[in-house]
Amino acid sequence: MASKKNSGNVEKKLVGLADAVIEAAQKKKDPTIEIPVRSLSNVKFNEKKGIIEMGENTQERSFFNVAMAKKFMQTILVGDALAELQRAELTTSLREIYYRTKHTIADSNENTFDSQDESDPIIEDLEVGLAALREELHVRAENGGTVIGPLVLEDDGDRVDCSKLGKGGYSVPSIVEDPYVKIKKCSADFILLVEKGTQWNRMAEDKFWKKYNCVLLTGNGQPPRGVRRLTRRLHEEKRLPVYVLVDNDPWGYYIYSVVKQGSINLAFESQRMAIPAAKFIGLSSADPERYGLPRNVGIKLNDKDTTRAKELLNYPWFASKKWQVEIKRMLTSGLKYELDALANKDFQYLTKKYLPKKLQDKDWID
Amino acid sequence: MASKKNSGNVEKKLVGLADAVIEAAQKKKDPTIEIPVRSLSNVKFNEKKGIIEMGENTQERSFFNVAMAKKFMQTILVGDALAELQRAELTTSLREIYYRTKHTIADSNENTFDSQDESDPIIEDLEVGLAALREELHVRAENGGTVIGPLVLEDDGDRVDCSKLGKGGYSVPSIVEDPYVKIKKCSADFILLVEKGTQWNRMAEDKFWKKYNCVLLTGNGQPPRGVRRLTRRLHEEKRLPVYVLVDNDPWGYYIYSVVKQGSINLAFESQRMAIPAAKFIGLSSADPERYGLPRNVGIKLNDKDTTRAKELLNYPWFASKKWQVEIKRMLTSGLKYELDALANKDFQYLTKKYLPKKLQDKDWID
Repeated sequence: MASKKNSGNVEKKLVGLADAVIEAAQKKKDPTIEIPVRSLSNVKFNEKKGIIEMGENTQERSFFNVAMAKKFMQTILVGDALAELQRAELTTSLREIYYRTKHTIADSNENTFDSQDESDPIIEDLEVGLAALREELHVRAENGGTVIGPLVLEDDGDRVDCSKLGKGGYSVPSIVEDPYVKIKKCSADFILLVEKGTQWNRMAEDKFWKKYNCVLLTGNGQPPRGVRRLTRRLHEEKRLPVYVLVDNDPWGYYIYSVVKQGSINLAFESQRMAIPAAKFIGLSSADPERYGLPRNVGIKLNDKDTTRAKELLNYPWFASKKWQVEIKRMLTSGLKYELDALANKDFQYLTKKYLPKKLQDKDWID
Repeated sequence: MASKKNSGNVEKKLVGLADAVIEAAQKKKDPTIEIPVRSLSNVKFNEKKGIIEMGENTQERSFFNVAMAKKFMQTILVGDALAELQRAELTTSLREIYYRTKHTIADSNENTFDSQDESDPIIEDLEVGLAALREELHVRAENGGTVIGPLVLEDDGDRVDCSKLGKGGYSVPSIVEDPYVKIKKCSADFILLVEKGTQWNRMAEDKFWKKYNCVLLTGNGQPPRGVRRLTRRLHEEKRLPVYVLVDNDPWGYYIYSVVKQGSINLAFESQRMAIPAAKFIGLSSADPERYGLPRNVGIKLNDKDTTRAKELLNYPWFASKKWQVEIKRMLTSGLKYELDALANKDFQYLTKKYLPKKLQDKDWID
């Protein structure tokens, strides 16, 4: 459970929202909420910090405006549900908040919400407006990550030693904020965040984490929020370097970039999710040649891949020479490679040859 | 790692495959492998056992047959890779087996495999042909399940106490066969297998498993093989009843039916995966009325739902009166309900009201 202190702060902010409305009503003024603009026009790349962040633009959402009245009402409803979560010290999902706040307005056929597409953006509005991470609002994302390595956590009073969980590991909860999850001890030298479960399994089975003294994390695809936050916390609190291992395709580059500087859609969260010092350890488009992967285990880039790769070339966070070479090399070869393709050499090529050489040669891009 | 003994058995079977080929060659006969037929025509529902199982039909795959020669060669290649896994005591994924066995045949432009669609069915052929569970062939599926509760496992020499892993839990590996994973102790009264992570999280957070002394499992959707096998093992070895909690839609019914009697596609695995005594605890189409869920949190059945529900009505495993009523009630109402919709009443309605009443009333279908 969140400590009273933390909960209190967020609850106060939520109650403040309602107070402002009451105050305006008492003064016979139009109740208005100020919400930062979450559109592309208000997103910029902060070169110095190395993160994608939001600008300063805000917009007002007021009750006495026909175009905004429904959204205003929805904002207050969601705020109320979020305050309920704080008071009861509960967490829930986006979907359950939609259901919780959905009802038919008395004497009408009008629903407060017709679909989750209406409630999700309001939760994001409140995250930004109240400067509270979604996790602090007690809203969970899906689980789906796993961790193993020389790391001791405390979860709900239990001491979880991630070096003593066999090959299975600890299932990373969606909310890993202190005090929900405490990092009690971590003696690792670095963190390896792997895109896919298959390679994570290979490394767990071969006890790669033990030999190379690292924390192994996977999100089974695009890492969910809990995995990103745990990585960020370990990076920040334990000063551990972070290496990201993904497929060699535009999607892999994108996953890496989200870990590193955040995403455009959730720019307001980069400040507490992004890891600007994260390094891309592979698969690089240089690897097939360097490690002798045959062309027949490459997969032809399709039109979507090519378009996406060309888009990436224009992002300021891929502007460095190394990245331009990396992406252009993929385009020139016309091929993408999955991490799984390393098995073509040997089932243990990843843990016995590829990663050891990468780490020894410091062969990564940052 | 698998014990030498177990590995030995499967390895012997795989080597036997090669021996038969050599023997045939020495006798100047056509090397032939006998493979059980895995088509719908060879699948039947065993009413007595309550599982979907395969019939007795087999087909021969021979080398001196132009139509079969490539598939024969592929079978031997996959068999060889599987034997390599046994010898090295490694596990891997379907995808990596595809990459491992893919190469261009000397002096030709012909690949041994052009896509994973060619290697996957061969692995299934070998599973059936050798009567070895995929896990015994050391082939992993994805991870993706989580368990919590009064259960102690042993994984790779580590003692994993699933009652001391906070709200996160143990990430269920794809292979939970003894000796990979040993069930050391389980004092639970029953197993609750939940479709979605959200509800699992709710129950973990509320320590539902502690209050009701049960093992909580989720597969985040259709449960992956590891979750099904662990459930089956706990059911069988610890004689624990299994309750399945899914959304009230045709997909939820289907998930339940796969847990209970297996699937048509993988009929050959029912014998060791299915749990004929598994009970459907909800959401039932009777629940919205019984628990006062408003119609506006129901979702209109689409054409696909309706077609699917009508198909289910014709399956022999849904032929009982209770099931006919259950499915027809959904069709009549024209609505489906997600478990998440229970949050409309209260964020903790699931753990404080719904499940306690279900368990007390023994309100389930089997």
